[in-house]
Amino acid sequence: MTERLVVVGGDAAGMSAASQARRLRPGLEIIAFERGSHVSYSACGEPYFAGGLVDSIDDLIARTPEQFAAMDIDVRLHHEVVEIDLYRRSLTVRSHEDGSESPIGFDHLMYATGSKPARPDSIEGIRLPGVLGLRTLDDAVALRDTIDSDIKRVAVLGGGYIGLEVAEVLVGKGLLVTMVTSGQHVLERTLDAEMGELANNGVREIGVDLHTGMRVRCIRGTDRATGIGCEEEEFPADLVVIGLGTVPEVELAREAGIPLGGTGAVAVDDRQRTGVEGVWCAGDCAEATHRISGRQVNIALGTVANKAGRVAGTNIGNGDARFPGVLGTAITRVGRTEIGRTGLKVHEARLAGYDPVIGMATGTTTAGYWPEAERMDVMVIANRSDGRLLGAQIVGGRGSAKKIDVLATAMWAGVSASELAWVDLGYAPPFSGVWDLIHIAARRAAR
Amino acid sequence: MTERLVVVGGDAAGMSAASQARRLRPGLEIIAFERGSHVSYSACGEPYFAGGLVDSIDDLIARTPEQFAAMDIDVRLHHEVVEIDLYRRSLTVRSHEDGSESPIGFDHLMYATGSKPARPDSIEGIRLPGVLGLRTLDDAVALRDTIDSDIKRVAVLGGGYIGLEVAEVLVGKGLLVTMVTSGQHVLERTLDAEMGELANNGVREIGVDLHTGMRVRCIRGTDRATGIGCEEEEFPADLVVIGLGTVPEVELAREAGIPLGGTGAVAVDDRQRTGVEGVWCAGDCAEATHRISGRQVNIALGTVANKAGRVAGTNIGNGDARFPGVLGTAITRVGRTEIGRTGLKVHEARLAGYDPVIGMATGTTTAGYWPEAERMDVMVIANRSDGRLLGAQIVGGRGSAKKIDVLATAMWAGVSASELAWVDLGYAPPFSGVWDLIHIAARRAAR
Repeated sequence: MTERLVVVGGDAAGMSAASQARRLRPGLEIIAFERGSHVSYSACGEPYFAGGLVDSIDDLIARTPEQFAAMDIDVRLHHEVVEIDLYRRSLTVRSHEDGSESPIGFDHLMYATGSKPARPDSIEGIRLPGVLGLRTLDDAVALRDTIDSDIKRVAVLGGGYIGLEVAEVLVGKGLLVTMVTSGQHVLERTLDAEMGELANNGVREIGVDLHTGMRVRCIRGTDRATGIGCEEEEFPADLVVIGLGTVPEVELAREAGIPLGGTGAVAVDDRQRTGVEGVWCAGDCAEATHRISGRQVNIALGTVANKAGRVAGTNIGNGDARFPGVLGTAITRVGRTEIGRTGLKVHEARLAGYDPVIGMATGTTTAGYWPEAERMDVMVIANRSDGRLLGAQIVGGRGSAKKIDVLATAMWAGVSASELAWVDLGYAPPFSGVWDLIHIAARRAAR
Repeated sequence: MTERLVVVGGDAAGMSAASQARRLRPGLEIIAFERGSHVSYSACGEPYFAGGLVDSIDDLIARTPEQFAAMDIDVRLHHEVVEIDLYRRSLTVRSHEDGSESPIGFDHLMYATGSKPARPDSIEGIRLPGVLGLRTLDDAVALRDTIDSDIKRVAVLGGGYIGLEVAEVLVGKGLLVTMVTSGQHVLERTLDAEMGELANNGVREIGVDLHTGMRVRCIRGTDRATGIGCEEEEFPADLVVIGLGTVPEVELAREAGIPLGGTGAVAVDDRQRTGVEGVWCAGDCAEATHRISGRQVNIALGTVANKAGRVAGTNIGNGDARFPGVLGTAITRVGRTEIGRTGLKVHEARLAGYDPVIGMATGTTTAGYWPEAERMDVMVIANRSDGRLLGAQIVGGRGSAKKIDVLATAMWAGVSASELAWVDLGYAPPFSGVWDLIHIAARRAAR
């Protein structure tokens, strides 16, 4: 009898799994349910679509339902899975078109519901109209429509990746942007203070009114958001964008009895198996093993979702794949300032039992004498006793962010800081100094 | 008694050694002889100085003789070492100021004479005035003066790094540039054919009249070069730039009896010791061990010279350093086309006993939908049996070249192609796709 894979959630992890399972098992029946209007889209491109840097929503869609149909993958948009019955191995699916509910059985279940923007109810008014988060393409369309309406002032809550990227496009549209974060600097969850200060500078340089160390208490307004209220200040706003991080979408899993891990996301092994036979999970709603701390983490990034989804699909397809873990590598930019990070922060390294030492190098993105030279700072964190690379952060001008990949690759492979200082990296005046700043920071960390 | 280190040749390798020896051994007497007008300069910046992209020659000088004097390193410009007497442990030094010659003894000798542009005498007229090479800052000044004089047409002989970089700046000055190379494509010594063709396109895109597979037979002209003669064509030229590669400057060493290796450069061990006690060597005139082929190679790049010079200086300073070898990583750009390469070419891999397989990936420098997306191609060469990375090449638009460092780092650390396909690299739409082209090329090579 034909086995059936049912995918819950049609973005990166779910559709990667579906595609890979299809490649390996042509006979498998595959049905994917997505409650929104799109599958397989670039969530990371949404701020840029909202701000008009990317023109068409089609640009963000990797594959349409029609393209999946051609691969014999049955995608059902506007269909929300509302219950999972593990005992009967059956789902209840609600159609958003007619409100009807129907059951569907599965042999394999791929749980890939992703995450949603955190909306802490401790902030009064957080659910008012005019308070927008950014997760799905539908969210991006709503944000774009609001930006393009007659607004002047925007308050961005939070200084994470989404907050930074949205702030940049808002400024580019000529809007007045206030950003408020409770952290001492933007990207506080992923950057150490030295580098976070540099990121703050980048945010301020593009004209954002950045307030750090400030808590938002409420959203002002009755029918619609008209501003935000903080401990000591009030900021008027025609639009409030929340960028307070994400939370994994695990309600369905929890109700069904699929075991969650300590992070609150679904616990999985390195084959992306949950604690329930035949139920798989990957992406923003799943945990992953951090290669440096050895701990389970929940990292809501498309890179992880695509890779882990592919692993799940390989295994569903009777192949054999193991997810090798994450480093938490992430990059972004705000204006001319590029930011890259990987591995553990200093504090996280201590919690993981290491004795971290820091190597800092300040220089330029190119040879110092090159006309386009911009400042660049590299921070390398290594373990005192053996020089093991634990983390790295880069903030600088054009060309800085992707250089974090060198540090991620070295860390991945267990290259020590002292060895990294000698790796044969490329050099030409438009691209770096003859000693790359990575060499210099690694050498200082190794001392 | 105070020991004396004498350095022959005052650029990257020699002055790195001098500086490092000084740091470690404050009591050492250090004298550096340089026959030219400058020490410690960026040879790689010379094309850009010649073309006016870098304004002042001072920009290319990392440290002046005065700065070295402040470090208690005695730099003597316009002094050429004309003989080395290993038995007496003494040099003969000629002053270019007054022509006088004088002897000087040494305890340690750092041989760092570098390389010179190849001027094959098989090309008639190769030594005519108006035929310029580029090695020293004095050469760069001469080239700049000629470019800024009333000339229109330039012939560039050879399609190596220097040739490409000079061609770019010449085009930028509005000159008509013809480039002739005997190779089927530019950078033939370092790129495989598929990638070389892409590099050819980049050269042609900026308006260079590129002729591949064509041999130059002679330089036309009597008092001064007026053109070049090839097998079937003649090209008029007011200036001829030779970029036919470099040859190590080993005459002094050969005459003195310092053993040369199979490449023609000075043989050294991984401490940069030559075959003669107390005589050290690094840089363009020295060999180095290739980490993938295991063979001795002669790579004339500033990256290698700085690192190997530092190793020599550490050991001269009674420290303990070993040079870990090279991958031959090199990057450049011509117009908007960036080029990076590392490791072995396919043919070299076969010669070294591997069974190379190729993974190619064509995509874009950013997310495909990003407004600034430009084409980028990545080639990964791996060993069939175990997936060991053997080489990699990248050609593409802005941001492409330095991505070779990820491949160099993975290769350095022994990461296999199949593992590289999973490394946690950074992603954001302005910088790459969610699967980096490096992942895709590595995965294809691993199959």
